[in-house]
Amino acid sequence: MDGAGHKQAAQGNAMLVFAQFGAGRIGAIHAANLAASGSARLAHVVDVNAAAGAALARKHGARVSDTATALADPAVGAVIIASSTDTHADLVIAAARSGKAIFCEKPIDLSLAHVDEALAAVRDAGMPMLVGFNRRFDPNFAELHRRIGAGAIGTVEQVVITSRDPGPPPLDYIRVSGGMFRDMTIHDFDMARWMLNEEPIEVFANGAALVDPAIAAAGDIDTAMVLLRCASGRMAHINNSRRATYGYDQRVEVHGSLGRLVAGNRVGTTVEQADATSIATDKPLHFFLERYAEAYRIELAAFIDAVVNQAPMPVGAEDGRRALVLADAALQSLRENRPVRVA
Amino acid sequence: MDGAGHKQAAQGNAMLVFAQFGAGRIGAIHAANLAASGSARLAHVVDVNAAAGAALARKHGARVSDTATALADPAVGAVIIASSTDTHADLVIAAARSGKAIFCEKPIDLSLAHVDEALAAVRDAGMPMLVGFNRRFDPNFAELHRRIGAGAIGTVEQVVITSRDPGPPPLDYIRVSGGMFRDMTIHDFDMARWMLNEEPIEVFANGAALVDPAIAAAGDIDTAMVLLRCASGRMAHINNSRRATYGYDQRVEVHGSLGRLVAGNRVGTTVEQADATSIATDKPLHFFLERYAEAYRIELAAFIDAVVNQAPMPVGAEDGRRALVLADAALQSLRENRPVRVA
Amino acid sequence: MDGAGHKQAAQGNAMLVFAQFGAGRIGAIHAANLAASGSARLAHVVDVNAAAGAALARKHGARVSDTATALADPAVGAVIIASSTDTHADLVIAAARSGKAIFCEKPIDLSLAHVDEALAAVRDAGMPMLVGFNRRFDPNFAELHRRIGAGAIGTVEQVVITSRDPGPPPLDYIRVSGGMFRDMTIHDFDMARWMLNEEPIEVFANGAALVDPAIAAAGDIDTAMVLLRCASGRMAHINNSRRATYGYDQRVEVHGSLGRLVAGNRVGTTVEQADATSIATDKPLHFFLERYAEAYRIELAAFIDAVVNQAPMPVGAEDGRRALVLADAALQSLRENRPVRVA
Amino acid sequence: MDGAGHKQAAQGNAMLVFAQFGAGRIGAIHAANLAASGSARLAHVVDVNAAAGAALARKHGARVSDTATALADPAVGAVIIASSTDTHADLVIAAARSGKAIFCEKPIDLSLAHVDEALAAVRDAGMPMLVGFNRRFDPNFAELHRRIGAGAIGTVEQVVITSRDPGPPPLDYIRVSGGMFRDMTIHDFDMARWMLNEEPIEVFANGAALVDPAIAAAGDIDTAMVLLRCASGRMAHINNSRRATYGYDQRVEVHGSLGRLVAGNRVGTTVEQADATSIATDKPLHFFLERYAEAYRIELAAFIDAVVNQAPMPVGAEDGRRALVLADAALQSLRENRPVRVA
Repeated sequence: MDGAGHKQAAQGNAMLVFAQFGAGRIGAIHAANLAASGSARLAHVVDVNAAAGAALARKHGARVSDTATALADPAVGAVIIASSTDTHADLVIAAARSGKAIFCEKPIDLSLAHVDEALAAVRDAGMPMLVGFNRRFDPNFAELHRRIGAGAIGTVEQVVITSRDPGPPPLDYIRVSGGMFRDMTIHDFDMARWMLNEEPIEVFANGAALVDPAIAAAGDIDTAMVLLRCASGRMAHINNSRRATYGYDQRVEVHGSLGRLVAGNRVGTTVEQADATSIATDKPLHFFLERYAEAYRIELAAFIDAVVNQAPMPVGAEDGRRALVLADAALQSLRENRPVRVA
Repeated sequence: MDGAGHKQAAQGNAMLVFAQFGAGRIGAIHAANLAASGSARLAHVVDVNAAAGAALARKHGARVSDTATALADPAVGAVIIASSTDTHADLVIAAARSGKAIFCEKPIDLSLAHVDEALAAVRDAGMPMLVGFNRRFDPNFAELHRRIGAGAIGTVEQVVITSRDPGPPPLDYIRVSGGMFRDMTIHDFDMARWMLNEEPIEVFANGAALVDPAIAAAGDIDTAMVLLRCASGRMAHINNSRRATYGYDQRVEVHGSLGRLVAGNRVGTTVEQADATSIATDKPLHFFLERYAEAYRIELAAFIDAVVNQAPMPVGAEDGRRALVLADAALQSLRENRPVRVA
Repeated sequence: MDGAGHKQAAQGNAMLVFAQFGAGRIGAIHAANLAASGSARLAHVVDVNAAAGAALARKHGARVSDTATALADPAVGAVIIASSTDTHADLVIAAARSGKAIFCEKPIDLSLAHVDEALAAVRDAGMPMLVGFNRRFDPNFAELHRRIGAGAIGTVEQVVITSRDPGPPPLDYIRVSGGMFRDMTIHDFDMARWMLNEEPIEVFANGAALVDPAIAAAGDIDTAMVLLRCASGRMAHINNSRRATYGYDQRVEVHGSLGRLVAGNRVGTTVEQADATSIATDKPLHFFLERYAEAYRIELAAFIDAVVNQAPMPVGAEDGRRALVLADAALQSLRENRPVRVA
Repeated sequence: MDGAGHKQAAQGNAMLVFAQFGAGRIGAIHAANLAASGSARLAHVVDVNAAAGAALARKHGARVSDTATALADPAVGAVIIASSTDTHADLVIAAARSGKAIFCEKPIDLSLAHVDEALAAVRDAGMPMLVGFNRRFDPNFAELHRRIGAGAIGTVEQVVITSRDPGPPPLDYIRVSGGMFRDMTIHDFDMARWMLNEEPIEVFANGAALVDPAIAAAGDIDTAMVLLRCASGRMAHINNSRRATYGYDQRVEVHGSLGRLVAGNRVGTTVEQADATSIATDKPLHFFLERYAEAYRIELAAFIDAVVNQAPMPVGAEDGRRALVLADAALQSLRENRPVRVA
């Protein structure tokens, strides 16, 4: 992580210069946070969609590039990989070999073999890499985790994660997503690992398509419950649905020997309305763009900070790999209806 | 309080024997609590409504009496006065002179002079008396008060009382009620005195009939805001309405030098419903019969306990008088639009 | 349910007369609720502990009996079985054969074969039987269930049950309890069945002794997570611990196609304290005696009502059996580390 | 509001160019929001503290100016007046006469005569002016107000405003602040007017120095309760303290004919900790910089939008004047201990 390339990447960049791959929804968020950070500058935007790339580049004073040009620019110290999932691993490899620090959206790849190949390239190049598990930077979950570390609830024993999307993505997306466990639950696997503070050794999963039969027809599920088990006996539960009429439901509950910590949903406003019908409060913020807006800002700032100060990445390449291992095990568990061990 | 009559009243009553005046809604509650208390027995029921009296007497194995008979019964150690307000003071006087311990519903009377006459009789007879400020026995307010006493928020500085009925009483009742301040706010004046732990010396009141013009036509108000001021500078605010579409709204908030204590409403169930519309919880318990069911039980038990054990009454005759003094001052303030001093 | 015996049992009992087996902690609750019900009378108390039986009998004006005498009394229309678990099934059989309606504490027995024998006797005798799954009568869970039935959240998809005791029972109790799944989780299995409104067909369980190694030494667990799966794809999760420092944690969360329903804990008071440290509210009611006091009252009243009016039992013998089947399956799942099908 | 000057000020400014007076704490906030707005540019910074002015100017690429230079710059279309209170009115007058749109921090002045003079200048010049009642732009209060307008609670009847600072300002500040009513409560007077949607016609105030005797020695109070009354009978209550150990307490509660709306405090995180002591949630955001960060952003954006699009100001000069009239009346009420009419 702190090889020569890393040092070179970070050195002499008063403003860390970025090339960004992907100008879609999530790319636009990162580019805007980068522009507002005050400590970084976007130089290159690469996107297969020329119009989208040009629009984002124009907005932030960057130039439209191709991959080779962007990675060949010696001014570029870091890359943001926010393109489609199937391009992530190859871009990670290319960026690592070009001596760039890497911010890569999750998942690194849907194939563990390809992930391992990418991670080897990163390791060989000695480049720092952050995998975009944005929830670790959500102030609510981060505070919960901080308190676990501070001993507020003693030894962790059980983790319960609720993670429900307001509505399913388009079928076209689902077909290339790698399935719900790799696409959606992967965030929860990361949360579980983080909160348990111990690697799960076994996964058991139930799943069904209760929201939309078309999802079943596409070979995927939209509703799931997972159990994770650690060697010490600690355990975690995840429940997922692709549909929550009341908005994005993202909660974590951790039980320890001395008590319980819960991080709940953020709401739009604190307004409470009491009338002849009920006492009603606001619904949770609608989806990840709203709920995790702050997390995305903090995540990018943490990346820039770690690169510039050559500090450890708060969530690294191995975290990306472990979450995928758990997702793969969950899928296998679902198919074979048995608990699956993970190495 | 501990004169010969009191001692006599309490002595030898393994079961404290009661005569009850009034068999209406509130009388039925007290009679039922008395029956369930295990330490008291209802012997006489007196009511101008013969049918109501007979029904209640039958239900609890008591006999229908007239006032003289009930008070002449040497087995009777205590009375419950839950008849119409205009009969309270005379019954208090007669009961005191008969050597009975007295549980009297609020208000003692609408005339301060008559109250003073009754209190003098009680004092002369040395009989214990409890005035039915049931809210002091609500577990929520009682716990809030206990914490003030335990120093949880340091020195009390401000009290905010919210007290809103679900709907106005019948106009016939309003006409004989003595007005909202003496009928409804009187409970809040007692709460304010209790929470402030210092006598208010001045009252200022705003009032209007915003709920029903017929209430204005009857010479009363249905909406009010009051300020109370103590010599030390402590202050209290009360807001009242005769109508709350969402149910009985009964809250107390106390600010002290070290923090804030709030006691909120009780709800029917803890069920929370999240759907496409809102996150909705139950409304407050509908009205005083539901909200203060527990308080009525505890209140009567505290009375019996104080009589039997010759202990101080938790809320006494003087408390009934002081609340009326504040209500009278509020009415005068409203009429003269100026702050009114109380002795 | 409506055989001749049942009719006879209920007929002519303006006051339903009870014999009660067991005068311990839970027996005392039922006896007190029976006394306060106004529609039933306790005639016989049977307990191996003569002193306990005598005390309870004296308190409620009943006589101390042995089993044969109590069941031979033609005045007795119903029995409460609140003795130790190993006596339940035989008492059920004897009571059924004596033509008594049966209120039996859970579990009916730790052996499914013995349960089936008891249920056969009940069926043969045509006697009504309620199994003491008290949580169904908790007003919070009952209201949640009522709303599911009313369609408030559409089709149920997932159920999450949190059930955590404040502290473990004595080891002597644990040794004869049949294990945590049969002793504690059995309530949650019943809740899950009730809320899912469909029979689970498969159980998977994780468990560990994280609270006390002595519990492991006794061959039991104190911490568990369970998944249940129905044929339709509906699923439920249960998390349990024998220790919760903050009090009895009893919550149910149900997700449906149209929304989410949650029933939370009941707290002692609504008092909220804000100070330099935090905003703090009351902890949940400490344990089942407090949390389910109301449920026990309603449960017994529902039993009496069903017997007297020959109405269906709200939770019957088969419910007791099904919960045990799930508990047995969970235990097998834990031992064999695989999902276990239930018939 | 839409005179020639206004039109001229707004025309031709794709980017609205600002001169800012005051480079202190609140000035820094406005300058940062201006820089991030994307639709405005800071050209001049004027401050008597040369170092502070230079630092802020440098940070935002502006130049340090004196008042005359800044106002003489024809490129400048708008001013932000965030200097000390005693300079506000004269700067308003000068800016208005220079044809600049005016964003003025509250209060316009401590002297109503001076305020009137400033407002006359603004009116004569036909310039748009916003007075910095930031709370109107707080998303929670704004949503509450929006719902009142949408009829969610019918006709407004009572407003209860809680407004408590975490700690008192320095005595040096208090001495020149014009007193708590003009310095702190003025925000609440504006809130009350906004929520009542009717002008109060009478003010009654209680006040005391309970937090710090030095504040009394300085001739001010630190604790207050106020009542406002409208001609229709609507009424409002405000409670204030200069000290809240648990953080900045800013709540609004509005009662209407159909229900109640409450906007509560914002907390740092949603984390809830349950342990042997309590169930504890986060304290409110500490003070106005945190709580109203979003409000300040929205406020400046609303100003820019109104200037550029020649739309009505969401909170105008007259609002600044009316709040001061109420503050003056409260002070007179406190001194004379009587309700004070306002014109």
